[in-house]
Amino acid sequence: MAKSPEEEHPRKAFGWAARDTSGVLSPFKFSRRATGDKDVTFRVLYCGICHSDLHMLKNDWGYSTYPLVPGHEIVGVVTEVGSKVENFKIGDKVGVGCVVGACHSCNNCANNLENYCPKSIQTYGFKYHDGTITYGGYSDIMVADEHYVIRIPDNLPLDGCAPLLCAGITVYSPMKFYGLDKPGMQVGVVGLGGLGHVAVKFAKAMGVKVTVISTSPKKKKEALEKLGADSFLVSSDQDEMQAAQGKLDGIIDTVAAMHPLAPLLGLLKSNGKLVLVGAPEKPLELPVFPLIMGRKTVGGSLTGGIKETQEMIDFAAKHNITSEIEVIPMDYVNTAMERLRKADVRYRFVIDIGNTLKSN
Amino acid sequence: MAKSPEEEHPRKAFGWAARDTSGVLSPFKFSRRATGDKDVTFRVLYCGICHSDLHMLKNDWGYSTYPLVPGHEIVGVVTEVGSKVENFKIGDKVGVGCVVGACHSCNNCANNLENYCPKSIQTYGFKYHDGTITYGGYSDIMVADEHYVIRIPDNLPLDGCAPLLCAGITVYSPMKFYGLDKPGMQVGVVGLGGLGHVAVKFAKAMGVKVTVISTSPKKKKEALEKLGADSFLVSSDQDEMQAAQGKLDGIIDTVAAMHPLAPLLGLLKSNGKLVLVGAPEKPLELPVFPLIMGRKTVGGSLTGGIKETQEMIDFAAKHNITSEIEVIPMDYVNTAMERLRKADVRYRFVIDIGNTLKSN
Repeated sequence: MAKSPEEEHPRKAFGWAARDTSGVLSPFKFSRRATGDKDVTFRVLYCGICHSDLHMLKNDWGYSTYPLVPGHEIVGVVTEVGSKVENFKIGDKVGVGCVVGACHSCNNCANNLENYCPKSIQTYGFKYHDGTITYGGYSDIMVADEHYVIRIPDNLPLDGCAPLLCAGITVYSPMKFYGLDKPGMQVGVVGLGGLGHVAVKFAKAMGVKVTVISTSPKKKKEALEKLGADSFLVSSDQDEMQAAQGKLDGIIDTVAAMHPLAPLLGLLKSNGKLVLVGAPEKPLELPVFPLIMGRKTVGGSLTGGIKETQEMIDFAAKHNITSEIEVIPMDYVNTAMERLRKADVRYRFVIDIGNTLKSN
Repeated sequence: MAKSPEEEHPRKAFGWAARDTSGVLSPFKFSRRATGDKDVTFRVLYCGICHSDLHMLKNDWGYSTYPLVPGHEIVGVVTEVGSKVENFKIGDKVGVGCVVGACHSCNNCANNLENYCPKSIQTYGFKYHDGTITYGGYSDIMVADEHYVIRIPDNLPLDGCAPLLCAGITVYSPMKFYGLDKPGMQVGVVGLGGLGHVAVKFAKAMGVKVTVISTSPKKKKEALEKLGADSFLVSSDQDEMQAAQGKLDGIIDTVAAMHPLAPLLGLLKSNGKLVLVGAPEKPLELPVFPLIMGRKTVGGSLTGGIKETQEMIDFAAKHNITSEIEVIPMDYVNTAMERLRKADVRYRFVIDIGNTLKSN
């Protein structure tokens, strides 16, 4: 008979878990594996709350298993390393993002794209190589193969840096892959939330001219003055949208809700690229004429590989980029989830695990 | 008052035109401009019938003007050249495709992409620089600026070569642009009609492995044995489609009717590209998850620039690629249109203008 989560590994661990599709989180005792030869063990200090955590808690995507400990924007300090670990030592500041394992034999893995490996193991709610279920960062301790551990440069604050491990790489990777990172380019960012606001910061640091496209005129001042966007379009303003037709080289679209693509395609120049990083549950309407007449493309992108995640963090450190965050105590997490559902956060919740997760 | 089509230019011309949205073609007297300094005048010998001719005849896209002389797959022999023409002489075999003018000052023109110039002038039914309406190749004579004239190599038969000027470049250009032209790649071709069958030939000549995807099992034998495709999938066969998941680097989708994209996206590898060159009138359903999970893209492409059209024709000549055609007399054209509407042609009608267009 399979052992219980509390008994299956030798190291005691503690976190908060959802027990069913109600998604309500509550304290949860479980266990972590002993530090293997290639493992890095670290004390979790902060963990960001990603919008996908909300979906997973409720089993919105149909593959959640319970108990479920969310969290894949995890940072902390190394407490133990395995005998064959080469790149980390006790005391290092490190992080773990969305993926903790992959096959390492497929074409994607060979190209440092563990995130697209068909056998990639997500940081929580997935079966690990040893057959046990992975638990995420809403917990006191993490153990991960060093291949999946990201080094956090000293100048980055751990709390503001945590969301970069998912939100950051999710927008950084497509900007690089789709070639939207060239100085002087005109790039749009749709949706000014957890992903979008970081996209603006990265794009500006790359030397790109940024247009924020939002349903909410209220965000204009902050987009321009605080985040440094060059211009702002209210997507419902027909005149504004019309005047901006054919101006953008590309768009990073972070909106996961249903929304029309036609107006966004209209904003693109010939050869322009619309990149979707938010996934609406139902198909979107794709008008084909604009694609053909302007040789435009609609593409997708999913987080990023480990090598690129380290590159992104180093880029963030160089340009002092962090997420705008609201730090919360662990026991506020269910309220935070409710607020996140209403988009009531600027721009990312980060749980102060180190100071507020108490096992009693 | 504007002059009549018959009087506006000094050179008498004769062709077949539609007079209204019934789309019925009948004999039509009009005129062509005198050969300008940079113009090439040629006697039309063959003209292919493109599916878009059918749409334009009926004003399906809402911008047709009447009388309308269709035809943009035009080949013939030069009869006169202007004093400043550099690349052509009397007797040369030449062709004209979809475009006869552009602004030559925009970014697209600067990149040899006259086809994407916002002011590009289509070969028929558009206003030319001199204010007169362009008439296409269902006619005895053509006059075009030499920039828009394609040289036809001697070894290419003029009749089978005519459709390459639209159908050929429409599939060749995206194979190059989207990088689906590398030897050993796996590329799908959806729809085995005028465009699709030429796509198979080009792809094979590029060294690509070709999978034809069709609704019609009846086309399998011909696809494999005559056109040289490597494999064939019946799109309605769930088992066949399932077994082929994740195998293709790209797909050239030539189908202009409404059709589901999800099964096609499923056939692509990570980073795979689905390129639409047929334009359904209504939006297609775009499932976003497959785009994101596999970093896949859906793109479009519209014919090709003049430089690339010459490159395509030269490539066709080198590899002895022509369209499979049914040559018809001019007075069969209305019947041919009816048959084309029912997809009853293998694979392209070509009008034998030289021998059968009679002005009485």
